[in-house]
Amino acid sequence: MKPLFQQITVLGAGLIGGSILLDSRKTGVAKKLVAWCRSKETLQRVKTAAIADTVTTDILAAVRGSDFVVFSTPIEVMGDLAKKIVTEIDPRCLITDVGSVKASVEAVMAPIFSKKGRWLGSHPMAGSEQSGLSAARADLFQNATVILTPDNQTPPETVTKLSRFWEILGGKVLTTTPEKHDYAVAQISHLPHLVAALLVDCVQAENLCFHGPGFRDATRIAAGPPALWCGILKENREAILASLDLFLQQAATAREALNSSDWSRLEEFLDRASRIRHSISGNLT
Amino acid sequence: MKPLFQQITVLGAGLIGGSILLDSRKTGVAKKLVAWCRSKETLQRVKTAAIADTVTTDILAAVRGSDFVVFSTPIEVMGDLAKKIVTEIDPRCLITDVGSVKASVEAVMAPIFSKKGRWLGSHPMAGSEQSGLSAARADLFQNATVILTPDNQTPPETVTKLSRFWEILGGKVLTTTPEKHDYAVAQISHLPHLVAALLVDCVQAENLCFHGPGFRDATRIAAGPPALWCGILKENREAILASLDLFLQQAATAREALNSSDWSRLEEFLDRASRIRHSISGNLT
Repeated sequence: MKPLFQQITVLGAGLIGGSILLDSRKTGVAKKLVAWCRSKETLQRVKTAAIADTVTTDILAAVRGSDFVVFSTPIEVMGDLAKKIVTEIDPRCLITDVGSVKASVEAVMAPIFSKKGRWLGSHPMAGSEQSGLSAARADLFQNATVILTPDNQTPPETVTKLSRFWEILGGKVLTTTPEKHDYAVAQISHLPHLVAALLVDCVQAENLCFHGPGFRDATRIAAGPPALWCGILKENREAILASLDLFLQQAATAREALNSSDWSRLEEFLDRASRIRHSISGNLT
Repeated sequence: MKPLFQQITVLGAGLIGGSILLDSRKTGVAKKLVAWCRSKETLQRVKTAAIADTVTTDILAAVRGSDFVVFSTPIEVMGDLAKKIVTEIDPRCLITDVGSVKASVEAVMAPIFSKKGRWLGSHPMAGSEQSGLSAARADLFQNATVILTPDNQTPPETVTKLSRFWEILGGKVLTTTPEKHDYAVAQISHLPHLVAALLVDCVQAENLCFHGPGFRDATRIAAGPPALWCGILKENREAILASLDLFLQQAATAREALNSSDWSRLEEFLDRASRIRHSISGNLT
Protein backbone atom coordinates (compact mmCIF):
# COMPACT_ATOMS: atom_id res chain seq x y z
CA MET A 1 0.00 0.00 0.00
CA LYS A 2 1.18 3.52 -0.77
CA PRO A 3 1.38 5.24 2.63
CA LEU A 4 -1.46 7.69 3.29
CA PHE A 5 0.85 9.91 5.37
CA GLN A 6 4.54 10.77 5.45
CA GLN A 7 4.61 11.12 9.23
CA ILE A 8 2.04 10.44 11.91
CA THR A 9 2.61 12.02 15.30
CA VAL A 10 0.68 10.45 18.15
CA LEU A 11 0.43 12.64 21.26
CA GLY A 12 0.04 10.37 24.30
CA ALA A 13 0.81 6.65 24.29
CA GLY A 14 -1.96 5.03 26.31
CA LEU A 15 -4.40 2.33 25.19
CA ILE A 16 -5.64 4.27 22.13
CA GLY A 17 -2.40 6.05 21.18
CA GLY A 18 -0.39 2.86 21.56
CA SER A 19 -2.90 0.89 19.49
CA ILE A 20 -2.80 3.54 16.74
CA LEU A 21 1.00 3.20 16.61
CA LEU A 22 0.87 -0.61 16.51
CA ASP A 23 -1.84 -0.67 13.86
CA SER A 24 -0.19 2.06 11.77
CA ARG A 25 2.99 0.01 11.70
CA LYS A 26 1.09 -3.15 10.76
CA THR A 27 -0.90 -1.51 7.97
CA GLY A 28 1.90 0.74 6.66
CA VAL A 29 -0.48 3.71 6.69
CA ALA A 30 2.45 6.11 7.28
CA LYS A 31 6.14 6.18 6.39
CA LYS A 32 7.25 7.40 9.80
CA LEU A 33 5.72 7.03 13.26
CA VAL A 34 6.44 9.58 15.97
CA ALA A 35 5.24 9.33 19.56
CA TRP A 36 5.20 12.10 22.13
CA CYS A 37 4.94 11.22 25.83
CA ARG A 38 4.57 13.56 28.76
CA SER A 39 6.65 11.48 31.15
CA LYS A 40 10.07 9.87 30.83
CA GLU A 41 8.62 6.63 32.24
CA THR A 42 6.19 6.30 29.32
CA LEU A 43 8.91 7.34 26.88
CA GLN A 44 11.03 4.47 28.16
CA ARG A 45 8.13 2.02 27.80
CA VAL A 46 7.44 3.17 24.21
CA LYS A 47 11.14 2.77 23.42
CA THR A 48 11.22 -0.72 24.93
CA ALA A 49 8.08 -1.70 23.00
CA ALA A 50 9.70 -0.29 19.82
CA ILE A 51 6.33 0.82 18.44
CA ALA A 52 7.48 4.20 17.01
CA ASP A 53 10.41 5.35 14.87
CA THR A 54 10.95 8.36 17.13
CA VAL A 55 9.85 8.88 20.72
CA THR A 56 10.32 12.17 22.52
CA THR A 57 9.06 14.32 25.40
CA ASP A 58 9.68 17.44 23.25
CA ILE A 59 6.27 18.15 21.74
CA LEU A 60 7.45 20.74 19.19
CA ALA A 61 10.04 18.31 17.84
CA ALA A 62 7.37 15.60 17.76
CA VAL A 63 4.96 17.46 15.47
CA ARG A 64 7.59 19.08 13.21
CA GLY A 65 7.23 17.80 9.65
CA SER A 66 4.09 15.74 10.40
CA ASP A 67 1.19 15.60 7.99
CA PHE A 68 -1.06 13.90 10.59
CA VAL A 69 -1.25 14.62 14.31
CA VAL A 70 -3.48 12.58 16.67
CA PHE A 71 -4.31 13.86 20.16
CA SER A 72 -4.72 10.75 22.31
CA THR A 73 -4.20 12.50 25.63
CA PRO A 74 -6.82 13.15 28.30
CA ILE A 75 -9.34 15.72 27.03
CA GLU A 76 -8.48 18.23 29.77
CA VAL A 77 -4.95 18.86 28.46
CA MET A 78 -5.70 19.01 24.71
CA GLY A 79 -6.26 22.79 24.56
CA ASP A 80 -2.95 23.65 26.23
CA LEU A 81 -1.01 21.21 24.05
CA ALA A 82 -2.74 22.50 20.91
CA LYS A 83 -1.74 26.11 21.70
CA LYS A 84 1.85 24.95 22.21
CA ILE A 85 2.16 23.13 18.89
CA VAL A 86 0.08 25.30 16.55
CA THR A 87 3.08 27.39 15.39
CA GLU A 88 4.84 24.22 14.20
CA ILE A 89 1.85 22.79 12.34
CA ASP A 90 2.04 22.57 8.56
CA PRO A 91 -0.96 24.32 6.90
CA ARG A 92 -1.97 21.04 5.20
CA CYS A 93 -1.46 18.86 8.29
CA LEU A 94 -4.50 16.79 9.31
CA ILE A 95 -5.25 17.00 13.04
CA THR A 96 -7.63 14.85 15.05
CA ASP A 97 -8.25 13.65 18.59
CA VAL A 98 -9.73 10.46 20.03
CA GLY A 99 -11.75 11.94 22.91
CA SER A 100 -15.03 10.38 24.06
CA VAL A 101 -16.76 13.77 24.13
CA LYS A 102 -16.84 16.03 21.09
CA ALA A 103 -18.64 19.38 21.61
CA SER A 104 -16.26 20.65 24.30
CA VAL A 105 -13.21 19.38 22.37
CA GLU A 106 -14.52 21.07 19.19
CA ALA A 107 -15.02 24.36 21.06
CA VAL A 108 -11.40 24.32 22.24
CA MET A 109 -9.61 22.88 19.20
CA ALA A 110 -11.43 24.30 16.16
CA PRO A 111 -10.48 27.96 16.86
CA ILE A 112 -6.84 27.04 17.54
CA PHE A 113 -6.48 25.20 14.23
CA SER A 114 -8.78 27.47 12.17
CA LYS A 115 -5.85 28.99 10.24
CA LYS A 116 -3.21 26.28 10.64
CA GLY A 117 -3.78 22.66 9.73
CA ARG A 118 -7.02 20.79 9.02
CA TRP A 119 -8.87 19.92 12.18
CA LEU A 120 -11.54 17.19 12.47
CA GLY A 121 -12.50 15.36 15.68
CA SER A 122 -12.71 11.54 15.91
CA HIS A 123 -14.17 9.18 18.48
CA PRO A 124 -13.05 5.57 17.95
CA MET A 125 -15.47 3.49 20.07
CA ALA A 126 -12.88 0.93 20.98
CA GLY A 127 -12.17 1.81 24.55
CA SER A 128 -11.82 -1.00 26.95
CA GLU A 129 -12.08 -1.51 30.67
CA GLN A 130 -8.31 -1.72 30.49
CA SER A 131 -6.04 1.27 29.98
CA GLY A 132 -2.44 2.21 29.37
CA LEU A 133 0.15 1.19 26.82
CA SER A 134 0.34 -2.39 28.10
CA ALA A 135 -3.28 -2.95 26.95
CA ALA A 136 -2.64 -1.58 23.43
CA ARG A 137 -3.36 -3.95 20.51
CA ALA A 138 -2.80 -3.74 16.76
CA ASP A 139 -6.37 -4.94 16.14
CA LEU A 140 -8.15 -2.64 18.61
CA PHE A 141 -10.01 -0.79 15.84
CA GLN A 142 -11.03 -3.86 13.84
CA ASN A 143 -14.80 -3.48 13.25
CA ALA A 144 -14.93 -0.61 15.75
CA THR A 145 -17.35 2.23 15.12
CA VAL A 146 -15.43 5.48 14.62
CA ILE A 147 -17.48 8.67 14.75
CA LEU A 148 -16.21 11.79 12.96
CA THR A 149 -17.78 15.15 13.83
CA PRO A 150 -17.40 17.59 10.92
CA ASP A 151 -19.36 20.85 10.80
CA ASN A 152 -20.47 22.70 7.67
CA GLN A 153 -17.04 24.42 7.50
CA THR A 154 -15.10 21.13 7.25
CA PRO A 155 -13.76 20.54 3.70
CA PRO A 156 -15.06 17.23 2.25
CA GLU A 157 -11.48 16.10 1.48
CA THR A 158 -10.62 16.34 5.19
CA VAL A 159 -13.52 14.00 6.01
CA THR A 160 -12.47 11.65 3.20
CA LYS A 161 -8.85 11.47 4.28
CA LEU A 162 -9.55 10.95 7.99
CA SER A 163 -12.21 8.32 7.11
CA ARG A 164 -9.65 6.55 4.93
CA PHE A 165 -7.18 6.46 7.85
CA TRP A 166 -9.66 4.85 10.26
CA GLU A 167 -10.89 2.44 7.61
CA ILE A 168 -7.32 1.25 6.97
CA LEU A 169 -7.14 0.53 10.70
CA GLY A 170 -10.32 -1.58 10.40
CA GLY A 171 -12.86 0.96 11.69
CA LYS A 172 -16.38 1.61 10.44
CA VAL A 173 -16.79 5.35 10.03
CA LEU A 174 -19.96 7.32 10.81
CA THR A 175 -20.32 11.10 10.84
CA THR A 176 -22.53 13.38 12.90
CA THR A 177 -22.31 16.80 14.55
CA PRO A 178 -20.40 17.20 17.83
CA GLU A 179 -23.64 17.98 19.70
CA LYS A 180 -25.57 14.98 18.35
CA HIS A 181 -22.52 12.82 19.04
CA ASP A 182 -22.48 13.85 22.69
CA TYR A 183 -26.17 13.04 23.20
CA ALA A 184 -25.80 9.72 21.38
CA VAL A 185 -22.78 8.56 23.40
CA ALA A 186 -24.39 9.74 26.63
CA GLN A 187 -27.13 7.18 25.88
CA ILE A 188 -24.99 4.43 24.40
CA SER A 189 -21.81 4.66 26.46
CA HIS A 190 -21.71 7.13 29.36
CA LEU A 191 -25.06 6.26 30.99
CA PRO A 192 -24.32 2.51 30.66
CA HIS A 193 -21.01 3.11 32.43
CA LEU A 194 -22.65 4.95 35.32
CA VAL A 195 -25.36 2.29 35.56
CA ALA A 196 -22.83 -0.58 35.53
CA ALA A 197 -20.96 1.09 38.39
CA LEU A 198 -24.26 1.46 40.29
CA LEU A 199 -25.06 -2.24 39.74
CA VAL A 200 -21.68 -3.25 41.18
CA ASP A 201 -22.10 -0.84 44.09
CA CYS A 202 -25.54 -2.24 44.97
CA VAL A 203 -24.40 -5.83 45.53
CA GLN A 204 -23.79 -6.70 49.17
CA ALA A 205 -20.23 -7.96 49.63
CA GLU A 206 -21.34 -11.46 50.70
CA ASN A 207 -23.40 -11.87 47.52
CA LEU A 208 -20.61 -11.12 45.04
CA CYS A 209 -19.53 -14.79 45.09
CA PHE A 210 -22.77 -15.73 43.32
CA HIS A 211 -21.92 -13.76 40.17
CA GLY A 212 -22.41 -15.48 36.83
CA PRO A 213 -21.51 -14.55 33.23
CA GLY A 214 -24.51 -12.21 32.97
CA PHE A 215 -23.31 -10.03 35.84
CA ARG A 216 -19.73 -10.10 34.58
CA ASP A 217 -20.77 -8.89 31.12
CA ALA A 218 -23.28 -6.33 32.39
CA THR A 219 -20.70 -4.73 34.69
CA ARG A 220 -17.43 -5.22 32.76
CA ILE A 221 -17.26 -1.55 31.76
CA ALA A 222 -17.47 -0.50 35.43
CA ALA A 223 -13.87 -1.73 35.78
CA GLY A 224 -12.70 1.15 33.57
CA PRO A 225 -10.25 3.80 34.85
CA PRO A 226 -12.14 6.04 37.33
CA ALA A 227 -10.24 9.27 36.56
CA LEU A 228 -10.84 8.93 32.81
CA TRP A 229 -14.53 8.24 33.34
CA CYS A 230 -14.91 11.07 35.83
CA GLY A 231 -13.39 13.33 33.15
CA ILE A 232 -16.02 12.11 30.68
CA LEU A 233 -18.85 12.77 33.17
CA LYS A 234 -17.47 16.28 33.61
CA GLU A 235 -17.12 17.02 29.89
CA ASN A 236 -20.53 15.62 28.95
CA ARG A 237 -22.43 16.44 32.15
CA GLU A 238 -25.49 17.98 30.53
CA ALA A 239 -26.21 15.20 28.02
CA ILE A 240 -25.56 12.50 30.65
CA LEU A 241 -27.95 14.20 33.09
CA ALA A 242 -30.63 14.22 30.38
CA SER A 243 -30.05 10.51 29.64
CA LEU A 244 -29.99 9.62 33.33
CA ASP A 245 -33.26 11.46 33.93
CA LEU A 246 -34.95 9.56 31.10
CA PHE A 247 -33.55 6.29 32.49
CA LEU A 248 -34.78 7.07 36.02
CA GLN A 249 -38.21 7.94 34.68
CA GLN A 250 -38.43 4.63 32.78
CA ALA A 251 -37.09 2.77 35.82
CA ALA A 252 -39.81 4.31 37.99
CA THR A 253 -42.41 3.12 35.47
CA ALA A 254 -40.98 -0.41 35.53
CA ARG A 255 -40.89 -0.33 39.34
CA GLU A 256 -44.55 0.66 39.43
CA ALA A 257 -45.44 -2.21 37.06
CA LEU A 258 -43.50 -4.66 39.25
CA ASN A 259 -45.03 -3.31 42.44
CA SER A 260 -48.56 -3.58 41.03
CA SER A 261 -47.84 -7.00 39.45
CA ASP A 262 -48.67 -5.67 35.97
CA TRP A 263 -47.09 -8.66 34.21
CA SER A 264 -48.42 -7.97 30.74
CA ARG A 265 -46.84 -4.51 30.80
CA LEU A 266 -43.53 -5.90 32.08
CA GLU A 267 -43.44 -8.67 29.50
CA GLU A 268 -44.19 -6.15 26.75
CA PHE A 269 -41.28 -4.02 28.00
CA LEU A 270 -38.89 -7.01 28.22
CA ASP A 271 -39.99 -8.19 24.80
CA ARG A 272 -39.34 -4.78 23.22
CA ALA A 273 -35.87 -4.58 24.82
CA SER A 274 -35.05 -8.14 23.74
CA ARG A 275 -36.04 -7.45 20.13
CA ILE A 276 -34.03 -4.21 19.99
CA ARG A 277 -30.99 -5.92 21.54
CA HIS A 278 -31.20 -8.76 19.03
CA SER A 279 -31.45 -6.21 16.20
CA ILE A 280 -28.14 -4.46 16.89
CA SER A 281 -25.93 -7.50 16.57
CA GLY A 282 -26.15 -10.67 14.56
CA ASN A 283 -23.66 -12.22 16.91
CA LEU A 284 -24.74 -11.77 20.51
CA THR A 285 -21.41 -12.68 22.05
CA MET B 1 -15.47 -43.21 35.82
CA LYS B 2 -17.98 -45.33 37.73
CA PRO B 3 -21.38 -43.78 36.96
CA LEU B 4 -22.83 -41.76 39.84
CA PHE B 5 -26.39 -42.70 38.80
CA GLN B 6 -28.09 -45.62 37.12
CA GLN B 7 -30.66 -43.43 35.36
CA ILE B 8 -31.03 -39.66 35.10
CA THR B 9 -34.41 -38.36 34.01
CA VAL B 10 -34.41 -34.79 32.71
CA LEU B 11 -37.84 -33.15 32.65
CA GLY B 12 -37.88 -30.52 29.91
CA ALA B 13 -35.27 -30.30 27.15
CA GLY B 14 -34.51 -26.60 26.74
CA LEU B 15 -31.15 -24.87 27.07
CA ILE B 16 -30.44 -26.21 30.58
CA GLY B 17 -32.08 -29.64 30.25
CA GLY B 18 -30.46 -30.24 26.87
CA SER B 19 -27.06 -29.21 28.19
CA ILE B 20 -27.42 -31.54 31.19
CA LEU B 21 -28.13 -34.43 28.80
CA LEU B 22 -25.18 -33.58 26.54
CA ASP B 23 -22.80 -33.15 29.46
CA SER B 24 -24.04 -36.27 31.25
CA ARG B 25 -23.32 -38.28 28.13
CA LYS B 26 -19.88 -36.72 27.76
CA THR B 27 -18.89 -37.30 31.39
CA GLY B 28 -20.54 -40.70 31.80
CA VAL B 29 -22.16 -39.54 35.04
CA ALA B 30 -25.11 -41.91 34.50
CA LYS B 31 -25.64 -45.29 32.82
CA LYS B 32 -28.91 -44.27 31.18
CA LEU B 33 -30.28 -40.89 30.10
CA VAL B 34 -34.04 -40.34 29.88
CA ALA B 35 -35.67 -37.14 28.58
CA TRP B 36 -39.29 -36.12 29.06
CA CYS B 37 -40.77 -33.46 26.78
CA ARG B 38 -44.20 -31.89 26.95
CA SER B 39 -44.63 -31.54 23.19
CA LYS B 40 -44.17 -33.99 20.33
CA GLU B 41 -42.20 -31.32 18.44
CA THR B 42 -39.52 -31.19 21.15
CA LEU B 43 -39.58 -35.01 21.44
CA GLN B 44 -38.77 -35.20 17.75
CA ARG B 45 -35.93 -32.71 18.13
CA VAL B 46 -34.45 -34.64 21.08
CA LYS B 47 -34.69 -37.85 19.04
CA THR B 48 -33.00 -36.21 16.06
CA ALA B 49 -30.24 -34.81 18.28
CA ALA B 50 -29.84 -38.30 19.81
CA ILE B 51 -28.92 -36.85 23.21
CA ALA B 52 -30.91 -39.30 25.36
CA ASP B 53 -31.30 -43.09 25.42
CA THR B 54 -35.05 -42.76 25.85
CA VAL B 55 -37.32 -39.84 25.00
CA THR B 56 -41.00 -39.78 25.87
CA THR B 57 -43.97 -37.52 26.48
CA ASP B 58 -45.21 -39.98 29.15
CA ILE B 59 -43.90 -38.47 32.38
CA LEU B 60 -44.65 -41.50 34.59
CA ALA B 61 -42.72 -43.77 32.24
CA ALA B 62 -39.89 -41.21 32.17
CA VAL B 63 -39.26 -41.19 35.93
CA ARG B 64 -39.85 -44.93 36.53
CA GLY B 65 -36.65 -46.57 37.77
CA SER B 66 -34.68 -43.30 37.95
CA ASP B 67 -32.33 -42.57 40.83
CA PHE B 68 -31.99 -38.90 39.78
CA VAL B 69 -34.71 -36.59 38.42
CA VAL B 70 -33.99 -33.02 37.26
CA PHE B 71 -36.81 -30.51 36.77
CA SER B 72 -35.64 -28.20 33.98
CA THR B 73 -39.10 -26.94 33.08
CA PRO B 74 -40.46 -23.44 33.66
CA ILE B 75 -40.93 -22.86 37.40
CA GLU B 76 -44.69 -22.36 37.07
CA VAL B 77 -45.36 -25.97 36.04
CA MET B 78 -43.02 -27.74 38.49
CA GLY B 79 -45.62 -28.24 41.23
CA ASP B 80 -48.19 -29.90 38.97
CA LEU B 81 -45.58 -32.19 37.42
CA ALA B 82 -44.18 -33.09 40.86
CA LYS B 83 -47.65 -34.14 42.11
CA LYS B 84 -48.06 -36.30 39.02
CA ILE B 85 -44.81 -38.19 39.39
CA VAL B 86 -44.45 -38.52 43.16
CA THR B 87 -46.14 -41.95 43.29
CA GLU B 88 -43.56 -43.35 40.88
CA ILE B 89 -40.53 -41.91 42.69
CA ASP B 90 -38.17 -44.36 44.36
CA PRO B 91 -37.63 -43.47 48.07
CA ARG B 92 -33.89 -43.07 47.51
CA CYS B 93 -34.24 -41.07 44.26
CA LEU B 94 -32.45 -37.69 44.26
CA ILE B 95 -34.64 -34.86 42.92
CA THR B 96 -33.58 -31.35 41.97
CA ASP B 97 -34.62 -28.44 39.78
CA VAL B 98 -32.68 -25.75 37.93
CA GLY B 99 -34.97 -22.76 38.57
CA SER B 100 -33.56 -19.24 38.95
CA VAL B 101 -35.69 -18.60 42.04
CA LYS B 102 -35.56 -20.90 45.04
CA ALA B 103 -37.89 -19.92 47.94
CA SER B 104 -41.10 -20.35 45.94
CA VAL B 105 -39.84 -23.59 44.36
CA GLU B 106 -38.85 -24.91 47.79
CA ALA B 107 -42.29 -24.07 49.21
CA VAL B 108 -43.97 -26.09 46.44
CA MET B 109 -41.55 -29.01 46.03
CA ALA B 110 -40.32 -29.81 49.54
CA PRO B 111 -43.74 -30.88 50.91
CA ILE B 112 -44.45 -33.03 47.84
CA PHE B 113 -41.19 -34.96 48.17
CA SER B 114 -41.03 -34.96 51.99
CA LYS B 115 -41.81 -38.70 52.20
CA LYS B 116 -40.76 -39.88 48.74
CA GLY B 117 -37.32 -39.22 47.29
CA ARG B 118 -34.60 -36.83 48.39
CA TRP B 119 -35.31 -33.28 47.36
CA LEU B 120 -32.71 -30.48 47.07
CA GLY B 121 -33.01 -27.38 44.85
CA SER B 122 -30.21 -26.25 42.47
CA HIS B 123 -29.57 -23.08 40.55
CA PRO B 124 -26.86 -23.47 37.91
CA MET B 125 -25.90 -19.88 36.95
CA ALA B 126 -25.23 -20.74 33.37
CA GLY B 127 -28.23 -19.24 31.68
CA SER B 128 -27.66 -17.43 28.48
CA GLU B 129 -29.41 -14.82 26.42
CA GLN B 130 -30.19 -17.75 24.15
CA SER B 131 -32.75 -20.43 24.94
CA GLY B 132 -34.09 -23.73 23.69
CA LEU B 133 -32.51 -27.07 22.84
CA SER B 134 -30.64 -25.64 19.84
CA ALA B 135 -28.54 -23.48 22.21
CA ALA B 136 -27.64 -26.45 24.49
CA ARG B 137 -23.93 -27.17 24.92
CA ALA B 138 -21.97 -29.96 26.64
CA ASP B 139 -19.71 -27.39 28.32
CA LEU B 140 -22.42 -25.00 29.55
CA PHE B 141 -21.65 -25.72 33.22
CA GLN B 142 -17.86 -25.51 32.93
CA ASN B 143 -16.76 -23.11 35.70
CA ALA B 144 -20.37 -22.07 36.29
CA THR B 145 -21.46 -21.23 39.82
CA VAL B 146 -24.13 -23.70 40.96
CA ILE B 147 -26.05 -22.74 44.10
CA LEU B 148 -27.69 -25.49 46.20
CA THR B 149 -30.28 -24.48 48.78
CA PRO B 150 -30.49 -27.07 51.58
CA ASP B 151 -32.32 -26.37 54.82
CA ASN B 152 -31.53 -27.85 58.24
CA GLN B 153 -33.67 -30.92 57.36
CA THR B 154 -31.57 -31.84 54.30
CA PRO B 155 -29.37 -34.92 54.93
CA PRO B 156 -25.66 -34.12 54.38
CA GLU B 157 -25.31 -37.06 51.95
CA THR B 158 -27.96 -35.49 49.70
CA VAL B 159 -25.91 -32.28 49.53
CA THR B 160 -22.73 -34.29 48.89
CA LYS B 161 -24.25 -36.34 46.07
CA LEU B 162 -25.88 -33.41 44.27
CA SER B 163 -22.66 -31.37 44.66
CA ARG B 164 -20.73 -34.27 43.15
CA PHE B 165 -23.07 -34.32 40.14
CA TRP B 166 -22.64 -30.62 39.37
CA GLU B 167 -18.89 -30.80 39.96
CA ILE B 168 -18.60 -33.65 37.45
CA LEU B 169 -20.33 -31.32 34.95
CA GLY B 170 -17.70 -28.64 35.69
CA GLY B 171 -19.69 -26.47 38.11
CA LYS B 172 -18.46 -24.72 41.24
CA VAL B 173 -20.92 -25.47 44.03
CA LEU B 174 -21.99 -23.00 46.74
CA THR B 175 -24.77 -23.51 49.29
CA THR B 176 -27.11 -21.06 50.97
CA THR B 177 -30.74 -20.94 52.13
CA PRO B 178 -33.52 -20.46 49.55
CA GLU B 179 -34.33 -17.00 50.99
CA LYS B 180 -30.74 -15.73 50.97
CA HIS B 181 -30.36 -17.16 47.47
CA ASP B 182 -33.32 -15.17 46.22
CA TYR B 183 -32.02 -11.88 47.64
CA ALA B 184 -28.53 -12.58 46.29
CA VAL B 185 -29.69 -13.37 42.74
CA ALA B 186 -32.06 -10.39 42.78
CA GLN B 187 -28.93 -8.24 43.21
CA ILE B 188 -26.56 -10.19 40.99
CA SER B 189 -28.83 -11.38 38.19
CA HIS B 190 -32.45 -10.17 38.19
CA LEU B 191 -31.86 -6.44 38.80
CA PRO B 192 -29.02 -6.40 36.20
CA HIS B 193 -31.45 -7.94 33.69
CA LEU B 194 -34.11 -5.30 34.35
CA VAL B 195 -31.50 -2.53 34.18
CA ALA B 196 -30.01 -3.85 30.93
CA ALA B 197 -33.49 -3.84 29.39
CA LEU B 198 -34.00 -0.25 30.59
CA LEU B 199 -30.66 0.81 29.06
CA VAL B 200 -31.70 -0.64 25.70
CA ASP B 201 -35.12 0.96 25.95
CA CYS B 202 -33.65 4.42 26.68
CA VAL B 203 -31.58 4.68 23.49
CA GLN B 204 -33.26 6.66 20.71
CA ALA B 205 -33.55 4.53 17.58
CA GLU B 206 -31.25 6.79 15.53
CA ASN B 207 -28.48 6.46 18.12
CA LEU B 208 -28.33 2.65 18.18
CA CYS B 209 -25.89 2.68 15.25
CA PHE B 210 -23.23 4.22 17.51
CA HIS B 211 -23.08 1.19 19.81
CA GLY B 212 -19.66 -0.15 20.76
CA PRO B 213 -18.47 -3.25 22.62
CA GLY B 214 -19.26 -1.65 26.01
CA PHE B 215 -22.95 -1.25 25.18
CA ARG B 216 -23.12 -4.72 23.64
CA ASP B 217 -21.69 -6.34 26.77
CA ALA B 218 -23.68 -4.20 29.21
CA THR B 219 -26.97 -5.08 27.50
CA ARG B 220 -26.36 -8.64 26.22
CA ILE B 221 -28.56 -10.17 28.92
CA ALA B 222 -31.48 -7.97 27.81
CA ALA B 223 -31.75 -10.22 24.73
CA GLY B 224 -32.93 -13.09 26.95
CA PRO B 225 -36.37 -14.72 26.48
CA PRO B 226 -39.01 -12.23 27.74
CA ALA B 227 -41.50 -14.83 29.01
CA LEU B 228 -38.85 -16.66 31.06
CA TRP B 229 -37.63 -13.39 32.56
CA CYS B 230 -41.15 -12.17 33.27
CA GLY B 231 -41.66 -15.45 35.16
CA ILE B 232 -38.54 -14.74 37.21
CA LEU B 233 -39.74 -11.19 38.04
CA LYS B 234 -43.04 -12.72 39.16
CA GLU B 235 -41.48 -15.46 41.31
CA ASN B 236 -38.93 -13.15 42.95
CA ARG B 237 -40.92 -9.91 42.97
CA GLU B 238 -40.29 -8.92 46.56
CA ALA B 239 -36.50 -9.33 46.55
CA ILE B 240 -36.22 -7.62 43.16
CA LEU B 241 -38.29 -4.67 44.38
CA ALA B 242 -35.96 -4.32 47.38
CA SER B 243 -32.88 -4.43 45.10
CA LEU B 244 -34.42 -2.00 42.63
CA ASP B 245 -35.26 0.46 45.41
CA LEU B 246 -31.69 0.38 46.69
CA PHE B 247 -30.44 0.88 43.12
CA LEU B 248 -32.79 3.84 42.52
CA GLN B 249 -31.71 5.42 45.79
CA GLN B 250 -28.02 5.12 44.86
CA ALA B 251 -28.79 6.38 41.34
CA ALA B 252 -30.51 9.44 42.79
CA THR B 253 -27.40 10.11 44.92
CA ALA B 254 -25.16 9.83 41.84
CA ARG B 255 -27.51 12.11 39.90
CA GLU B 256 -27.31 14.71 42.64
CA ALA B 257 -23.49 14.52 42.62
CA LEU B 258 -23.48 14.95 38.81
CA ASN B 259 -25.97 17.79 38.94
CA SER B 260 -23.97 19.64 41.60
CA SER B 261 -20.63 18.86 39.86
CA ASP B 262 -19.35 17.04 42.94
CA TRP B 263 -16.48 15.39 41.06
CA SER B 264 -14.57 14.08 44.06
CA ARG B 265 -17.65 12.20 45.21
CA LEU B 266 -18.26 10.80 41.72
CA GLU B 267 -14.67 9.72 41.28
CA GLU B 268 -14.73 8.04 44.68
CA PHE B 269 -17.87 6.16 43.62
CA LEU B 270 -16.41 5.13 40.23
CA ASP B 271 -13.17 4.09 41.92
CA ARG B 272 -14.98 1.88 44.44
CA ALA B 273 -17.04 0.22 41.68
CA SER B 274 -13.94 -0.30 39.54
CA ARG B 275 -12.04 -1.95 42.39
CA ILE B 276 -14.95 -4.25 43.27
CA ARG B 277 -15.43 -5.22 39.60
CA HIS B 278 -11.71 -6.00 39.25
CA SER B 279 -11.90 -8.13 42.40
CA ILE B 280 -14.54 -10.56 41.17
CA SER B 281 -12.67 -11.79 38.12
CA GLY B 282 -9.01 -12.19 37.34
CA ASN B 283 -9.94 -12.28 33.68
CA LEU B 284 -12.13 -9.33 32.78
CA THR B 285 -13.27 -10.66 29.42
